[in-house]
Amino acid sequence: MGKRLTRRTLLVSTGVAGAGVALVGGGYALKTAQDVAATPARKSTGTAIPFYGAHQSGIVTPSQEHLHFASFDLLTNDRAAVRSLLMIWSNAAATMMSGHPLGEDTTPPLAPPADTGEALGHGAENLTITIGFGPTLFIKDGKDRYGITNQRPAALIDIPPMMGDALQPQRSNGDLCVQACADNPQVAFHAVRNLARLARGLAVMRWSQLGFNRTASTSKGQETPRNLMGFKDGTNNLKSEDASLMDQHIWVGANDQPTWMRGGSYVVTRRIRMHLESWDREHLQGQEEVFGRHKISGAAFGKKEEFDAVDLNAKDGKGKLLIDTNAHVRLAIGDGTIKILRRGYSYTDGMDSITGELDAGLFFIAYQRDPRKQFVPLQTQLARNDLLNEYITHTSSAIFACPPGAAQGSFVGETLFVR
Amino acid sequence: MGKRLTRRTLLVSTGVAGAGVALVGGGYALKTAQDVAATPARKSTGTAIPFYGAHQSGIVTPSQEHLHFASFDLLTNDRAAVRSLLMIWSNAAATMMSGHPLGEDTTPPLAPPADTGEALGHGAENLTITIGFGPTLFIKDGKDRYGITNQRPAALIDIPPMMGDALQPQRSNGDLCVQACADNPQVAFHAVRNLARLARGLAVMRWSQLGFNRTASTSKGQETPRNLMGFKDGTNNLKSEDASLMDQHIWVGANDQPTWMRGGSYVVTRRIRMHLESWDREHLQGQEEVFGRHKISGAAFGKKEEFDAVDLNAKDGKGKLLIDTNAHVRLAIGDGTIKILRRGYSYTDGMDSITGELDAGLFFIAYQRDPRKQFVPLQTQLARNDLLNEYITHTSSAIFACPPGAAQGSFVGETLFVR
Repeated sequence: MGKRLTRRTLLVSTGVAGAGVALVGGGYALKTAQDVAATPARKSTGTAIPFYGAHQSGIVTPSQEHLHFASFDLLTNDRAAVRSLLMIWSNAAATMMSGHPLGEDTTPPLAPPADTGEALGHGAENLTITIGFGPTLFIKDGKDRYGITNQRPAALIDIPPMMGDALQPQRSNGDLCVQACADNPQVAFHAVRNLARLARGLAVMRWSQLGFNRTASTSKGQETPRNLMGFKDGTNNLKSEDASLMDQHIWVGANDQPTWMRGGSYVVTRRIRMHLESWDREHLQGQEEVFGRHKISGAAFGKKEEFDAVDLNAKDGKGKLLIDTNAHVRLAIGDGTIKILRRGYSYTDGMDSITGELDAGLFFIAYQRDPRKQFVPLQTQLARNDLLNEYITHTSSAIFACPPGAAQGSFVGETLFVR
Repeated sequence: MGKRLTRRTLLVSTGVAGAGVALVGGGYALKTAQDVAATPARKSTGTAIPFYGAHQSGIVTPSQEHLHFASFDLLTNDRAAVRSLLMIWSNAAATMMSGHPLGEDTTPPLAPPADTGEALGHGAENLTITIGFGPTLFIKDGKDRYGITNQRPAALIDIPPMMGDALQPQRSNGDLCVQACADNPQVAFHAVRNLARLARGLAVMRWSQLGFNRTASTSKGQETPRNLMGFKDGTNNLKSEDASLMDQHIWVGANDQPTWMRGGSYVVTRRIRMHLESWDREHLQGQEEVFGRHKISGAAFGKKEEFDAVDLNAKDGKGKLLIDTNAHVRLAIGDGTIKILRRGYSYTDGMDSITGELDAGLFFIAYQRDPRKQFVPLQTQLARNDLLNEYITHTSSAIFACPPGAAQGSFVGETLFVR
C-alpha cells in the first residue's frame, strides 16, 4: 500500500505535528509504517485548524459542511469540577482538531480505549470545537451553584418570547454548549461523543442537533449555499475576512463588560422547522415574493446578480415597491445597522410522527457581540411581520456566551474560572 | 465569474448530456452563460450514475458517503395509480441522478416550482435511487388491493421475530421504499423529498432514516470504514466487482421465481441502536473479543493485517480458540456459504429522551438473492449468540423486493405492473 495520510500521521506532513504532540501532553508516539498502512484514510482533508488563539475557532472559521451541536446540563455543584471539565474539554478539543485520537497511542488492553475510534482514518477535516456558557451556568432555579452569578454578562439574556414561538423546552437552553463543525460528519459526531464521554458524571447531554449541509457562507471564498426552501441563504451575511466588521459586530470588545468575555462572542441558536409540504405547493412567484429575491439567481427583485446591492426602495412602473414591505430580505436588512454572523445548517430529523410531514428545516446559528442589540431586535421584527412565518416554526432556542480563545497551557473558560 | 459546473450543465462536459436530455423527455434547454454563472456549484462531484440498465443502481454501486432511506405507505386502491406513480418516480429518479433539476428549465411564475431547488449548484454526486416493494404491497390486512397477491415472491417473507428484537412498528416495514445514496447529503435529501412530493395524494412517508457515513465497502477500490464502535466494518463484505458472486448471492437468477424479479434483489434493513455509553466503558480487550478482531488494524485475532484471511480454528498455546465461540466475526462468517452485500450507514438521531443517551448506531442494509437462505439464518444465529448483542438493540426492520432495472422508455416495476 502506498503512503497515505491518517488521522494520526496527517499533521507530520503539514508541519503541525509538533503542536499536536504538545497538545496531548506528551507521550504521543508515531506509529510504524505498517500500522499506518493498516489505518488508511478516506477523503481526508489535509487541513487542521488551531484550537489555541485569541478567539475560539468555529466562529469566523469558514463554515464547514457538517455540524453536530450539543447542549449539556451540569450535574455537579462543585466549582472545581466544572473548571476541571473545561480543562479536559480544551485539551481534548485541541487534540481532536489536530487530527489525533485522544489519549496515548496505545490503550492498555484492560482499560477502556481513550478514544472511541470511529474517526480513525479520517484527517482533521477542518474540525472546530466551540464551547459556550448558558444563562443557567450562572444561576439556575435561583441558585448560584458556582459562585459566578455576579459574573453573568448583561448581554447573556434569557431570549424573550417571540411571536409564533413553539419552543420545546427539552430541545432548548442548557448550561454548556459544544458546537462541532467539520467537513466530515463522522468527525463532528466523534468530537461531540467524546466530549460527552469525558463529561460523564459531571454533565449530561440535554439535546443535540445534527446539521447535514451548511446554509450560510461566512467567508468571501465560499459560494452561497441553498437552504431547504431552495433559496440561497446568507448572501448578505457578514464575511469573516472583514476584520473591522468582526470587531464591530461579532467580538466582545476591549471595553465591554464583563472583562472575562473580551474576545468572545454570543451565540444564539434556533431550530427553525420549515413546513416544506406547504412551501412546495406555493407557486414560484409567491415563493420569490416571500424572500424578495429570485430563486435561481439569488438576485434581489430589480437586480440581476446575487451580489448586486439590494435596493429596498426600488419601485415598479406604478410606484409599487418591488420588494414587499414584509419580505424576508427587507426585514433581515432592516435599517442596515444590525449585523450578525450566521453559520447555520440544514437539518432533517426524519418524520413528524403526528403530521406525517418531514421534520426538516434550518438550525440557525448566529454569533454577535450583544444579542440585546442584534438578535433580539432583528428577530422581534421578523417574528412579527416576516412573510416567511407562514412556512416556518421555531421549535428550539438557546443562547450561550462563548468565551475568548485560550493560549496554549490555558483552557477555554479560564477567564471566568480563574481558579 | 469563471466557467463553473452546475447541476444543469455538468453533464454536457462529461458527455452524458444527451442521455440526460432524453431522460427528462425533451423540452430541456441549456441556460445562458449568465444564468450558469448565477448558480455556481460547490464541491460538485462530476460523476453521474445511469438510472437505466439491467439492474437498479444503488445495489452494486460502490457505496456513497450519505444515505436518505424512506418507506412509504400507499393511500390508493387503484392499481393504475400505483403504476403511474412508479413511472413518475422512475422518470424523476433518472433526471435527478443525471444531475438535472426536475421539470422544465423554467417554471411558470404562477405554478409551484417543478423542483424544490435545494440541490441546484450541486452535481450529480453519484446519486443512486433504488425502489423496492414491501410485503404489504401484495397483501395488506388480508386485502389484495392491486390484484398482485399471487405475484408475491416467496422470498419476500415477513421477517420472523428475532431474539432481542425491540422493533418499533412506526419505524418498520412499508409498501414501497426509496433508497437514495449520494456523496452529498443534501442531494440525497433532495431526491427523497421530491419523490415524496410527487407521490402526494397517492402515498405518504411512513418512516425515513438519514445515514451520515457509510459503514461498509462494496467495492475493491474502497477502504473499509469504521462503525460508531470504532471498528472496521465489512472487511469480509462481498465486493461488487465479483460478478459471479453477485450472480450467485445478490441477483435473482434467470431461473428464479417469480419471473418479474429476475435481475432484481431483496433488501433487508435493520436500524441497530448501539449502546455507546456502555460500549465506551468496555475495555479494549473486551471490545476486541466481542468482534474477534483488533480494533486499530482490523486484523482478525491471530492475524496481522485487516485482509488476512480469518482463521476461525486458530488456537493459543493452551489449545483455546483465539476467536470466541460467539464472537461477531465467527457468527457472521458462519460456515462461509452464506454471503450478503451490506451497504449500511451510521446514523444518529440525537438523544433518547428517556435514557438521555445518544440514539445512534448502524442502519444496516443488506442485499441478497433470497432472505430465507441468507439474512434469516445469519441473523437468527447472531440474534441468539452474538457477543455484540449486549451492546445493540434492533429497533426497526423492513424487507423489500427491488425489481430489476428498467430500459429507457420503461420504468422500475414495469415487470410487475405490466399494464
